[in-house]
Amino acid sequence: MLPGVGVFGTGSTARMLVPLLRGEGFEVRALWGRSEEEARSLAQELGIPFHTSQSDDVLLHPDVDLVCIYISPPLTRQIAVKALGIGKNVVCEKAATAVDAFKMVTAARYYPQLLSIVGNALRFLPAFVAMRQLLAEGYVGELQVCDARVYGPSLLDQSYGWTCEELMGGGGLHTVGSTLVDLLSHLTGARAIRVHGLLRTFVRQNGAIRGIRRVTSDDFCFFQMLMGCSGRGTGSGVCCTVTLNFNMPGAFVHEVMVVGSAGRLIARGTELYGQRNGGNGEELLLGDSEGAGQEVKDVPLPHLRGLGSMVKALKDAFQAQEERRSWVRGPVAMASTFEDGLYVQTVVEAVKRSSRSGEWESVEVMTQEPDPNQNLCEALQRNKN
Amino acid sequence: MLPGVGVFGTGSTARMLVPLLRGEGFEVRALWGRSEEEARSLAQELGIPFHTSQSDDVLLHPDVDLVCIYISPPLTRQIAVKALGIGKNVVCEKAATAVDAFKMVTAARYYPQLLSIVGNALRFLPAFVAMRQLLAEGYVGELQVCDARVYGPSLLDQSYGWTCEELMGGGGLHTVGSTLVDLLSHLTGARAIRVHGLLRTFVRQNGAIRGIRRVTSDDFCFFQMLMGCSGRGTGSGVCCTVTLNFNMPGAFVHEVMVVGSAGRLIARGTELYGQRNGGNGEELLLGDSEGAGQEVKDVPLPHLRGLGSMVKALKDAFQAQEERRSWVRGPVAMASTFEDGLYVQTVVEAVKRSSRSGEWESVEVMTQEPDPNQNLCEALQRNKN
Repeated sequence: MLPGVGVFGTGSTARMLVPLLRGEGFEVRALWGRSEEEARSLAQELGIPFHTSQSDDVLLHPDVDLVCIYISPPLTRQIAVKALGIGKNVVCEKAATAVDAFKMVTAARYYPQLLSIVGNALRFLPAFVAMRQLLAEGYVGELQVCDARVYGPSLLDQSYGWTCEELMGGGGLHTVGSTLVDLLSHLTGARAIRVHGLLRTFVRQNGAIRGIRRVTSDDFCFFQMLMGCSGRGTGSGVCCTVTLNFNMPGAFVHEVMVVGSAGRLIARGTELYGQRNGGNGEELLLGDSEGAGQEVKDVPLPHLRGLGSMVKALKDAFQAQEERRSWVRGPVAMASTFEDGLYVQTVVEAVKRSSRSGEWESVEVMTQEPDPNQNLCEALQRNKN
Repeated sequence: MLPGVGVFGTGSTARMLVPLLRGEGFEVRALWGRSEEEARSLAQELGIPFHTSQSDDVLLHPDVDLVCIYISPPLTRQIAVKALGIGKNVVCEKAATAVDAFKMVTAARYYPQLLSIVGNALRFLPAFVAMRQLLAEGYVGELQVCDARVYGPSLLDQSYGWTCEELMGGGGLHTVGSTLVDLLSHLTGARAIRVHGLLRTFVRQNGAIRGIRRVTSDDFCFFQMLMGCSGRGTGSGVCCTVTLNFNMPGAFVHEVMVVGSAGRLIARGTELYGQRNGGNGEELLLGDSEGAGQEVKDVPLPHLRGLGSMVKALKDAFQAQEERRSWVRGPVAMASTFEDGLYVQTVVEAVKRSSRSGEWESVEVMTQEPDPNQNLCEALQRNKN
């Protein structure tokens, strides 16, 4: 039996999510927006029966058993942790900081019977499912290098907001880079042990953001990860490089390449190509018959398609259960856990640190909650530089 | 009147160069090979009247007024400097070290009436000539990011030799990366002030290189350059990223992209594409009607085509002159000088240093010849790490 769904957020992802959920048979019962007005407007447009700007109204809603949280990063932790406490299953976007991500991990560990996944839909994209499978089967031989690049138009909102602020989780690294950090760890079965990066904000002001306001979040980012063993895979010693550039209006370029001793695999957009050393050039391994026609503003096609596949997996996880809140792990086993979310957030922060220090930074995943004054100390520290 | 040409080298570049020279009306009078046998074999194949393994026999040959030096990096400096001393014009490949490059600069300064250019043919490729022109005209607006990538099959020779040895100028960074360092400085009108890089040798042994022999030159390299002002252009503050991977058999991928505030230009192989922000997607700005059919083993097509354009420019430089050794600067003004060669070698060495130290390294071009014991000291230093 499929659970009733409450959706948090009125942005482009939330807007795409609702029809996808309904397409798989989920009932969307409630919508939360930052303001009453935003919530009402989207609820009317999508025909959602209940809307509010009070998060408790959704979390305590008796018909809501699964909450999908696609809101600005600084609010994510609070709502996700509360939802778990109330006994709801949670799919949510990344948090703003590693400390927030750690608190989410703590909550997820405390309620292991509840579903708690980070909604990085790239893992579910068929091209990456196939890539991971082929890597495991040895298509590329011994893995050496991963190279990911995403180019696209500006990620800034029309008006000034969290997307402009590095500390609120804005910027290419946090928004898109984090999905690639997660994906590359999923594909290689390894985790970054050291990272080096460079962030830049080329566009500091535009027509909408001016006067005393300045963009602090990155629109260009470039980082390397040296992977170590996480016990799951053979990706130890692999070099990953990621290039992000959001000063390139037009269609998104979304390319992930893995190169090994015996060949390579390349996901371009939603399609997968492969080439074996000594073979007759590149072969199409997985096409996308739906074509690129569905491109949506602000959202790269692989994310949109992945979201569709993730919703299908959610359906499979809940469907055969008698209880509306019960689920089985199998169909969502490949999802990014809150633990993965903490790892990703740790890498993102290490890359930012590296961009400031100019040095390789090691990735050390938090194992206990830090002193509550740490943020303050870090901010003070940074001001000194 | 076109000068008689002496060619040093029997490798793939020298082999391609001879017909290109003849195509423009140059007479190739003499060929030098490392061994008598190599020289004889290629001279016979190409119908060159004189061959030798003694460099002086070519340099002192009365019919040779221009020498083209395409040999292993450690030998380049010696022959180039001697050729200038004897009064011959010189086109040559890069040297093995910055110290060698500095000695070449000293010689070139001493004989300013002689032609002395580094044969980085990429500068002459029509796609890059057009790219540079469009950059100057403001096609991309304010330049922000350059991104170059070359993927291809192994650069190692069939048998053990200098291509396997980092210290002899082997490896992707030295062989191909250096041409991109030169090109990016030419395109942006700026020079790298700080670099960060990572070199790897994934394939340390193969069918031909085994036993106690190991490859020390890089087959994967990845570096960033922060550009500063060189007085010529507006490329100050630009980030350049270069990715080289020579574990990818098949056709070469050779892509150079420049991104600015108003658009971008992308050279894919020998063709140039552009996209203006707000425009209708990508446009082909310069095609290559000859197609990709001419792909030659070991040499990326842009290098081959650029070599053709460079030889044409050389013809134009010499043609209208009465004296066989006289030339005009105009047609070869865009060529890479020995001073550029020194800069490139300095960047290459800084990237190598960065790969060892893990830190950003500054690029400081030598202004006086170092203590002859410096190499020794550096080697001792490195052993300590």
